[in-house]
Order: sequence, then C-alpha cells, then structure tokens
Amino acid sequence: MQITDVDVTDVRFPTSVTKDGSDAMNKDGDYSAVYVTLHTSGTAGAGSGNSAEGRLTGYGLTFTIGRGNDVVALAAEQIAARLVGVDVAAMAADMGGTYRRLTDDSQMRWLGPEKGAVHLALAAVMNAAWDLAGRFVGKPVWRMLADMTPEELVDVADMRYLADALTPDQAVQMLRAQEAGKAARIAQLEATGYPCYTTAAGWLGYSDEKMLRIIGEQAELGFGHVKLKVGGNLEDDLRRCALAREAIGPEGTLMIDANQVWDVPTAIDWITQLEPFGLHWVEEPTSPDDILGHRAIKEGIAPVKVATGEHCHNRVMFKQFLAAGAMDFCQLDAGRLASLNEIVAVLLLAARFDVPVCPHAGGVGLCEMVQHASMLDFVAISGTREGRLTEYVDHLHEHFAHPVRVAGGAYQVTGEPGYNTEMLPASVAEFRFPDGPYWSGRHVG
Amino acid sequence: MQITDVDVTDVRFPTSVTKDGSDAMNKDGDYSAVYVTLHTSGTAGAGSGNSAEGRLTGYGLTFTIGRGNDVVALAAEQIAARLVGVDVAAMAADMGGTYRRLTDDSQMRWLGPEKGAVHLALAAVMNAAWDLAGRFVGKPVWRMLADMTPEELVDVADMRYLADALTPDQAVQMLRAQEAGKAARIAQLEATGYPCYTTAAGWLGYSDEKMLRIIGEQAELGFGHVKLKVGGNLEDDLRRCALAREAIGPEGTLMIDANQVWDVPTAIDWITQLEPFGLHWVEEPTSPDDILGHRAIKEGIAPVKVATGEHCHNRVMFKQFLAAGAMDFCQLDAGRLASLNEIVAVLLLAARFDVPVCPHAGGVGLCEMVQHASMLDFVAISGTREGRLTEYVDHLHEHFAHPVRVAGGAYQVTGEPGYNTEMLPASVAEFRFPDGPYWSGRHVG
Repeated sequence: MQITDVDVTDVRFPTSVTKDGSDAMNKDGDYSAVYVTLHTSGTAGAGSGNSAEGRLTGYGLTFTIGRGNDVVALAAEQIAARLVGVDVAAMAADMGGTYRRLTDDSQMRWLGPEKGAVHLALAAVMNAAWDLAGRFVGKPVWRMLADMTPEELVDVADMRYLADALTPDQAVQMLRAQEAGKAARIAQLEATGYPCYTTAAGWLGYSDEKMLRIIGEQAELGFGHVKLKVGGNLEDDLRRCALAREAIGPEGTLMIDANQVWDVPTAIDWITQLEPFGLHWVEEPTSPDDILGHRAIKEGIAPVKVATGEHCHNRVMFKQFLAAGAMDFCQLDAGRLASLNEIVAVLLLAARFDVPVCPHAGGVGLCEMVQHASMLDFVAISGTREGRLTEYVDHLHEHFAHPVRVAGGAYQVTGEPGYNTEMLPASVAEFRFPDGPYWSGRHVG
Repeated sequence: MQITDVDVTDVRFPTSVTKDGSDAMNKDGDYSAVYVTLHTSGTAGAGSGNSAEGRLTGYGLTFTIGRGNDVVALAAEQIAARLVGVDVAAMAADMGGTYRRLTDDSQMRWLGPEKGAVHLALAAVMNAAWDLAGRFVGKPVWRMLADMTPEELVDVADMRYLADALTPDQAVQMLRAQEAGKAARIAQLEATGYPCYTTAAGWLGYSDEKMLRIIGEQAELGFGHVKLKVGGNLEDDLRRCALAREAIGPEGTLMIDANQVWDVPTAIDWITQLEPFGLHWVEEPTSPDDILGHRAIKEGIAPVKVATGEHCHNRVMFKQFLAAGAMDFCQLDAGRLASLNEIVAVLLLAARFDVPVCPHAGGVGLCEMVQHASMLDFVAISGTREGRLTEYVDHLHEHFAHPVRVAGGAYQVTGEPGYNTEMLPASVAEFRFPDGPYWSGRHVG
C-alpha cells in the first residue's frame, strides 16, 4: 500500500467577526488551517477507523490566523509531494526516518532553518503522516508512541543539536525508568482523562459581562481555572483581573496572557501591578525568541511564574529555555513544532529539566492534537499529571470528524485510531480560501 | 510621486552545477533572489542615478538557495502590495514609519513572528523601499543614513524588545558621541574603502588544486585571509587546513566555517583538532538558534573565536548573542534581517557590547548590500574599522547594474544613489524561474 496522491487545502474560518481568539497582539485573527490529505492505494483494516469509502487516508494540519496561510500551503505542497510513492507500512514502522527524509532538503532549509513558514508546513505534512500511521496500526498516536520501546521512541524523536542537554542514550535511560508504571498510568488515563483549563472567557475583545457569564458557565462544567488576555491597557487589565478574581473566589486559579506585547522592563512593571490579584502564571510576556529576557522577567516577577512556548519554534529554543531556567511551564504547540517527532524531543527535555508541559491549544485542531502529546507525556515520559494542565478552547471542534471529548475539566481518551485531525469534508469545502462558498460569497466582485 | 505598482520575480542562478557556494550543510545551492521592483509615477531628479527610461524605480531582493524561493516570493507579493499608493517623498522622509506599517500585520505575523519566509520577504520589500528612498534623495543608502541626526537614525532602527539591553535614549547618546569624527571618517572611507576578505577558495566542493590556485590568485589581489568550509569529514578538513596554512604562511589569517553541522560537544572536539593550524575564527559551529550552545563552544575552543549571524533571524536573537557573550564576531545578513531598519538596531547593539560586525555576504546581491551596513557602522555607529572585515565573494556581480567595486582587499565607495540592488533586465529575464529561457530550456518536457 502506497501514498498515491496529496492534497493541500487553505481553509479559513471567519473568527475575526466574533473576536473569538482576540488578544493584545492578535486583534482580528481568522483561524485557519493548512490542511493536508494523504491518499493511499489501499483500504483500511478493521481497527483503523477510517473515513467513509474505506480507502486508508491520513489527515493533518497546521494552524495560522489568516493571511499567509497560502504561503504555508505552498511550502506544504512541495514538502508533501516527497511522500508520494512511499510505502505506508514501511513509513509507519520508521517515522523517525520518514521525518529525517522530509527535513533533508538543503535548499528549502535556508528559509528557516527549522522555523517560520517551512517549519509550519513540515508540521502540517508530518501531522498527516502520523495520522495515517496511527490509522494503519489501528491506534491513537499517543498509544502508538506509548507502545514503543524506549529505543524506538528515541529514534522517533528529533535529537539533533540536543546532546549538550540530553543524549539519545540518556533519553533511553529516562524512558526505561518509566516503563514499570506505564500500564497502570494507561488505566488511570482511560478512567479519568487528562486535566485541562479553558481560555474561553478571557479574550480581549469580550465585554466584562460576556467574560463573567462565560466564567460562570465554565465553572459549572468543572473548570476551576481562568485565563485572561492582558496587555492592551493597564486600567482594563486591573478591572478585568479584579472581576475575574471576585468571580472565582480566593481558591480559583487565575492566569494572564500578554501575547508578546511587552519588552522586558515593561513586563516586570505591568505584571507587578497585577500581582495582587493572585496570578498563577503570566504567559508570553515578551518576544518568544527572548530566552534571556524571559529569565529576567521570571526573576523580576516571582512568585508569579512564566509560561511560554506556543511561538517557540523548535526544540533548540526549548532546550535553551529549559536549561536556562527561563520557563516555568512549557507550552509547546502541535502546529508549530514539526509534529510528534519534535514534540517527543521537547517532552524528553522538559522531563529532563523537571518542567511541567502544559501545551498550547485552541486555534483549529490544536486541542485535537495536543491531547495526544499530554497523554503520551503522562504515560511514558514524565510519568505524572501533577501540576500539568492542557489548554482547551471550545470552538471549531464541530468541523472535525473525531473531535476532542472534554468532561469534568479533563480531556477524555476517545480511542480513535490516528491523530483526530480529520476535518469534515463539508467544512473544508465551505471555508476553502478563497474559492469556497463562504469566502467567494463574502468577497463579491 | 507615488508608488504605482510592484513586481516580485523569482530569479534562480544554477550555481549547483559548478559547486560554487557548496558547504557541509548546503551541498547544491542554486543561488536565488526574490527580486522586488517598486514602480513610481514620477521621474528621477538629476542626482538620483536611476535606470534607463527615467522613471524613478526601486529594486530590492532577498537571497535564498533555490527551492522555496517561490514561497518567499508569494509572501513578498502580499507585503509589497501594501506599498502601492504610498507617496515617495513621505516614505523617504519616514522610513521608520514605513517599516512599522509593513510589519503591522497581526495575521501574517503568526508565520514568524519575525523569522522565516515572512521575514525574508519583508527584507526583500524593505530593501527595495530603501533603494527607492536613496535614489529619491540622490544618495547611497549608507550616506543617507549617515547624514541623519542621532534621533532620526534611532527612529529608523527597530528598537522593539531591546530596552533591557539598549533604550532609544541610550542609542541616541551613543550616536552623539560619534558625531564629531564623522566627516573625517567619511573622507577616510572614500580614500581607502572598507576592508574585506574572500571565501572564494574555500568551498567544500572544490578540489585541493582548485582551492590552492584560487588562494594564490586572491593573494595577488590583496586578500590576506582565507576561509575554508569544513565539517564534512575530519580527515579532509585536516588536509585542507594544512594545505591552506602552508599556502598563506604563518602570518596569513585562516578561518573555518562549519555551516551548522555539529552539536555542541562535537563542535568542541572537531575544532580542537583543527586548532593547531592557527584559526582566527570558526563560523556557525552549531544551530544558529543556539545562543547558549555557542557560548559553551566559545568557552571550549578558546583562543579560537566564534563568528555567527548569517542565519540569526532577528535583532532579539542578536541582542541575546551579544549580551550573553556568545559571539565574538557579528555576521549579520542583509537578506535575512528585515532591511536597514533592523540592521541599524543590530549595529547599535554590537557597538553597545563592543563586538566587531563582519557581515555575511556572497549569495546574490549580499555584497552589494552589506557594504552599506559596514560603511554606515564605521562612519556613524562603531566609529572604527579595527578588527572588522566584511565578507566578499566574487560571483554573480555581473548581473547587477551597479556592482560592488573591490580593490586592494577593500570595498570601494561607488557613490551610486540607492542600495546597489538593481539587477540587469536581461539577467532577470534569462533566469526567471520556472519560465525564463535558462530554466524552461533546461527542464524540457
């Protein structure tokens, strides 16, 4: 069975209309996906949970917020073309080699290296390859990875440039130490899921009334955490933090997210003024590239902690953030890192430096993907859910064939083979940019 | 006079055929340019040195090494479109504001931020805007910038996220301190040029004989420095370093360039074995994102020094490399940083931390551009050429309307208004990808 053909589609949802997802840096995002489909010559086996017509197909995506989605799509087309002709069984048995072959393009590497549009594109393509591999072996990808030996899992991980912090041999030792409790943790996970928090209430474009109403609704659903977007205007932030703290009470957990709007001294000043409201963490206080700046902020705002990572573009950056003690919470992103190959490396690094991984999610399909990273981390890598929370945002799930299932403030194991990244054909058709009915009707003339 | 129209062209030169530019990471680059043309409604004034038909036009580019050039071109088209309708006089008088308006696209920002394809594209567009501005005021861009007041020059510089290392006020003070000697340095520069070294001999794909022949030729042209690409194979590197050292004698300056192939411990081992040949610097020993890794290498290989920067993607990375003492030589790149707006910020940071700037060049048009950065640095910012060398590679200059002029091992002031970035129409037509005669004839069928 071979990969016969690839499709790359530019899909954009008009979220700027409702201000869902608005923050101090990203005022009017149209949540978008570069959506990759890998067609094969073969039909699905019994356990492979494949779509309608029975052909085995892989679906993957990366997330952007609108303009530029076509730039990533163009890069993804060129990367995905290299998968045509690949044998699916051989690929599923060697996902490390598959990743290394796709990254071995010295010309395209110049556009990064390992960052920006080409890295997002690689993520979209490899995410589809992982979905296909999971369907082929009939397992969710977290379970496919958790069932690997330590050596196999380290071979999947992109360990290049990491040896000064963690060698492959050291990684194998770490994984071996977690082998004993794995079966028990899988049972725990299947029983209780993986804890999450929601950003639903806190978008900057929401009125105070809307924010408070959603906080109330979320509390009823079992969410004890509230995250507010800040950084537009200090007076607004003071008022919103006070209202939110009052709503959740002294025991509730309040986080803030500045989406990179501050420089280092401004961040320290601003956060210090919000600190009396009892902040668990501040997220993205400054440029995501500023490792040493984050460390200075962390030292300047203690006991408030620093969370970052959704724009941290590769494992080499995470290595430094973690080794330098510049992040208290590691918010890796499943659309920005180059798929599970790079995510596994970051999970290993975070475990090595004992930093909790609390993945970034929301967007389009990020929740669907990061649940796999968190579940794998608990079962096989860090071995704990203690102090960990995966982000959850309740929007755009209706476009997915197998969306996340959240109950009691936790992602529940769904058991679908693959990566939960298949979108509904009707959604893809409607919101395809620029020629789908939504966009072509909207931009008449 | 307004900008009426923009063209973006994908131009690729088939350098992979001759192995010009080959190194351990980049084995078969086809040196390419995303070439931006800004057309205007007005004609050139007397001193504006404009092209044939008399219409004032701006030309700019960024450099890639082949595949993916179209990805950057697509992003550049979208960014450049925002310049249509802009008044040229107003733009030339406010290049800081022009830059800030082009970077203020919160949707496209997600693809970086400030890195990868969108940042390369921004560089191409703003480089064209600088060329147009220089032609409009009738000055080479280095001179246009050198003639600004300290306040004007700092307003041009992108100082965002830099306050913990250098505030705008501190930058103004630094520039004021250099005002007194400026006229004398301009005279010195016009008399003697700016010193450079050449990488012509050292490409990894060259035979020993070709390497030695070119070293001899370059010595006759006044170049006392040799830089060799290394990192493919240790035995080859030992032999080539020995041959080169013998050819240039004990007084010659030998540098090596690993183009990112090593991890931190491997870099330290490998360089230590080459150290007996007397190395001035090692360039790009590991991932360009690895600030702390570069610092560890620097400590591990002293007295050999570390040079890096051609893949350092923005001023926030340079801030950290410089503040952390992780680079001994700052090799900024005029196609990767977002034009002179970001270059001026990096020049200020380098001066603040007293690190010599030795720009990366070669490629397509990089020499033409970086001479302006180095000249500006000497005249207005660091105030010295001591210990500085700008890279020079003698290829592809024949495609430029006003190529660099190198004599006696130094870039000579040419005096052409603009940024020297105009390519010959015949070259652009011949090597346009994929439909120019060269490429369409080559890939028949």
